[in-house]
This record gives sequence, structure tokens and C-alpha cells, in this order.
Amino acid sequence: MTLGRLNHVGVATPSIEKSIPIYRDLLGATKIHEAFDLPAQGVRVCFVDTPNSQIELIEPLGETSPILKFLEKNPLGGQHHVCFEVPDIHAAKAEMEAKGAKVLGEPRIGAHGTPVIFVHPKDMGGVLVELMEAPKREH
Amino acid sequence: MTLGRLNHVGVATPSIEKSIPIYRDLLGATKIHEAFDLPAQGVRVCFVDTPNSQIELIEPLGETSPILKFLEKNPLGGQHHVCFEVPDIHAAKAEMEAKGAKVLGEPRIGAHGTPVIFVHPKDMGGVLVELMEAPKREH
Repeated sequence: MTLGRLNHVGVATPSIEKSIPIYRDLLGATKIHEAFDLPAQGVRVCFVDTPNSQIELIEPLGETSPILKFLEKNPLGGQHHVCFEVPDIHAAKAEMEAKGAKVLGEPRIGAHGTPVIFVHPKDMGGVLVELMEAPKREH
Repeated sequence: MTLGRLNHVGVATPSIEKSIPIYRDLLGATKIHEAFDLPAQGVRVCFVDTPNSQIELIEPLGETSPILKFLEKNPLGGQHHVCFEVPDIHAAKAEMEAKGAKVLGEPRIGAHGTPVIFVHPKDMGGVLVELMEAPKREH
């Protein structure tokens, strides 16, 4: 596996609505996508574009959202994960596991509509790493 | 100000040497730069390239390193800051302050040799934000 694009940095927030002004009005983001629910992952997400990557704002959805615990520890929000692109999610999962890293669950459809996996922070220097099958890009 | 490139994600680690295999052998990074000391900031740093951005591994340097406290709370390491490029660091500082965000100290030379500032997480949704004057790129 070759390290792919840094697709996005996941930033947890108690409120996407309240975080948007930080990116739009303070930092000057010019492209902020519509927020949408991702019920399978228990989050609501909103992508903020930078010229080369994205910030993914993630807000808890439902009472079992996996980011509720993170927000308990970090009430203002904070950096939650980094997401790198891979060409094939099943190959990536097999390779990570073969190399001894703990993959959390099975591949599922992520916020960009392609399958993703998460790799446990204990094997990633304390960083929750998302691997995302790269979207087929237009040329 | 317009939101610039996501230059890098700063990842604190107790040991750059021990973190490099995570990026090289597990994630498949093909370009890992030489580590170097940044005494003015109390850190040793090492850049890992992705095709579109970088991970900046940061290790404490000296007994007053600003990341020692972070590592006390996160012994394995973890995501420490995100860095966006700006065209002019003094203009960026003035603008952030005019908009009510707390800038930590004066601009100083960062890991890429251009001036940087840090903006307090309390004004940034819990995220420590570095703003970095963009290097003059070759065309």
C-alpha cells in the first residue's frame, strides 16, 4: 500500500451550525458543502474545502453516536481523525491486519459514498486513522 | 482572508523514530523527510508527504517543550494542530485579532522556514490552528 491523498481531517463539534462561522468568517473558507446525516455512522457531517483537501465537521447524530464520548472529553470539539485515500478498501484492510494493526469493524460506506475503514489509534501513534477508497475522479 | 492549503496536520509523538514505521511500513509513505530540531519552538519535527499535503511529526525538544503537556494527556501521541497557508502572516494576524480570535504570541519562523502564528483552540472549535505564510513556490 502506498500512502494516498490526505482526503480530510475529521473535526468533531457539538454543533456544525456553530462551527461553520469559524471556517467561513474567521478563516475565509469559500466552499462549505451542505451538511447531511450519516445515520449508519451516527454522525452528521459537513465538508469544508481547502484548495487541496477538506475539513470534515462531524456532529453527533443520535444517542449512541461514537463521537459523544470524544465530545465529553473535549466539549469545544477538536481533531477527531485523519483520512487517507487508498485504491481498494478490502486490500487495505487485509494489509493493515496482516501487519498487525487493529481494524475497527468491516468496511462501510463513508461520507463520500465510498467504503471506509477505521484503524485503531493504539496502532497509529494515538491517531484515529480512516482509510477511504478513493472516489473515481473525472479526468 | 481566504482559506489556504491545508499545509500539514501536526501529530505529536513521544518518539519520531518510533512513529516513522507507522507511516512508512503500515501506511506506505514513500517520502519521509529528515527530522530536524526547531529549538525556538521546543520541538523536533519530521515531515511525511502525502500526494497533496503533509503530516508533521513533532517530538518534544527540551524540558519546556510546549508539547510535553499534550503528551502527558495523550501518552501515545495524537493530532496536535492543523496548519493552513496564508499569503501574509502579519495581515493574517491582524485579521484574526480584529475578528476576536486570540493569537498566541508574535509570528515566528516555523518548520518550513516561513513565519507562522498559532490561534487559540478556544476560538477555533477546540482545534489548535497554525497559520503559515505560504512558501514562494516554483512555477
